[in-house]
Amino acid sequence: MNDFQIALCQMKVGLDKTQNVKKAVKFIRKAGEKADLVVLPEMFNCPYQTDQFPSYAEGADESPTLKAVSRAARDTEVYLVAGSIPERDQDHIYNTSFIYNPTGELIGRHRKLHLFDIDVPGQIQFKESETLTPGDQVTVVDTDFGKLGVAICYDIRFPELARLMTLQGAQLLVFPGAFNLTTGPAHWEILSRTRALDNQVYLATCSPARDEKASYVAYGHSLVADPWGEVIFQAGIGEEILYASIKASRVDEIRQELPLLKNRRRDLYTLDLKK
Amino acid sequence: MNDFQIALCQMKVGLDKTQNVKKAVKFIRKAGEKADLVVLPEMFNCPYQTDQFPSYAEGADESPTLKAVSRAARDTEVYLVAGSIPERDQDHIYNTSFIYNPTGELIGRHRKLHLFDIDVPGQIQFKESETLTPGDQVTVVDTDFGKLGVAICYDIRFPELARLMTLQGAQLLVFPGAFNLTTGPAHWEILSRTRALDNQVYLATCSPARDEKASYVAYGHSLVADPWGEVIFQAGIGEEILYASIKASRVDEIRQELPLLKNRRRDLYTLDLKK
Repeated sequence: MNDFQIALCQMKVGLDKTQNVKKAVKFIRKAGEKADLVVLPEMFNCPYQTDQFPSYAEGADESPTLKAVSRAARDTEVYLVAGSIPERDQDHIYNTSFIYNPTGELIGRHRKLHLFDIDVPGQIQFKESETLTPGDQVTVVDTDFGKLGVAICYDIRFPELARLMTLQGAQLLVFPGAFNLTTGPAHWEILSRTRALDNQVYLATCSPARDEKASYVAYGHSLVADPWGEVIFQAGIGEEILYASIKASRVDEIRQELPLLKNRRRDLYTLDLKK
Repeated sequence: MNDFQIALCQMKVGLDKTQNVKKAVKFIRKAGEKADLVVLPEMFNCPYQTDQFPSYAEGADESPTLKAVSRAARDTEVYLVAGSIPERDQDHIYNTSFIYNPTGELIGRHRKLHLFDIDVPGQIQFKESETLTPGDQVTVVDTDFGKLGVAICYDIRFPELARLMTLQGAQLLVFPGAFNLTTGPAHWEILSRTRALDNQVYLATCSPARDEKASYVAYGHSLVADPWGEVIFQAGIGEEILYASIKASRVDEIRQELPLLKNRRRDLYTLDLKK
């Protein structure tokens, strides 16, 4: 891995898709002045409501949202993890992150693997599986600065996935995500830190800014954790761009000091992809 | 699982084996007045120094240490996770936790699977593999209150192991451990909380009390985390017994609210024991 700058665009997402996309483009252009890799939040063009996903969904080939953000990536010559959008493919809708290189070319796509179904009485109910279909691929892409793993929000709760991306060579894991005011304070930071620590990788999460009036109130607090499990930058709850330097040498250093990946008991247990 | 009381004996461990064992017996008898399950720290009869393990080691069948603590468990009618001791078996020495039922009968044994080799320049160097041999079994035992998973210290850093114990039905994971003043503040709590959270189990760690004059200074801070990833009790650094109530219904409740184990993509990835 080489050193590079990452920028997390913690933007507010509203009901108006055109406005959401305009804002995303503005954030990419601004962030692209300083960063090499720009990240948008989960469902950046759409309110995070299962019943809204079908009407906001776009097919990948004809998507005005993706055209606009990939052009902004090309114009500013940055890699872009385009948070996620509801993606229509025949009869299915996926929660999908599209990944572009600095020429605006699509280099990868992650369809959320684990759908978020939660029911904490009196606090939070949400059931993505009502309208979404899960993906079936682990996503690691090659970039000029090294291998990048991408997954979405609830995917972070499954240690198998972060480990599989790491075993495929990813040294930065990016999770666009929208935790809420129940799971956010309880779990957002410790999950991010522990996945980074266990796998000795950098890990970035990118949330929408908080909108107290929304149907689903996002936690905010986009962050970057380092391979020692420390949070090196964390946003507040409002709109902001969070910048962080990713130091390739830090991954090597930590892996040498505490050789966790080497010390795994591969003779005793196996973690494998089936497909 | 049924409700029960756990007690973590955060005792100071010194150079004198006889005194260490006497102290362990005293802690078990005291803790056993209130608790159903008593836990001792890692290497409770021995200073945590690789070069000392061979001279303190005992064979399981003839061990004065194990005779004393299993008798104390029987006399007070408690389950006992006897932290760990250096166990001699032919030419090998293991870092082993012996587990007893309330009649003092041995019901399980965990030999540390992942040996702790660390080298953080200027802060901490330690190499268990210089004198120890790793085990090759995942340890889950049946008790009257449910299945109990036991592993030791550095084993907690490998998410595969906590997951495997959970998949074997453990709803309480116990880790006798001795983190140090570098890894303790950085990782002890987030690892404990995240393993509990990911697997929706109770998790208890039991450290020796801190001894600033020891060759290896233990972190202390024995704790119990609940299936939501919250620390429900945490010790300080001195000698103490930490008690906590384990509520069976809390495991079921959390697993129903946020069905992580059900939502694992078993169609996509597999985590298996080789042996």
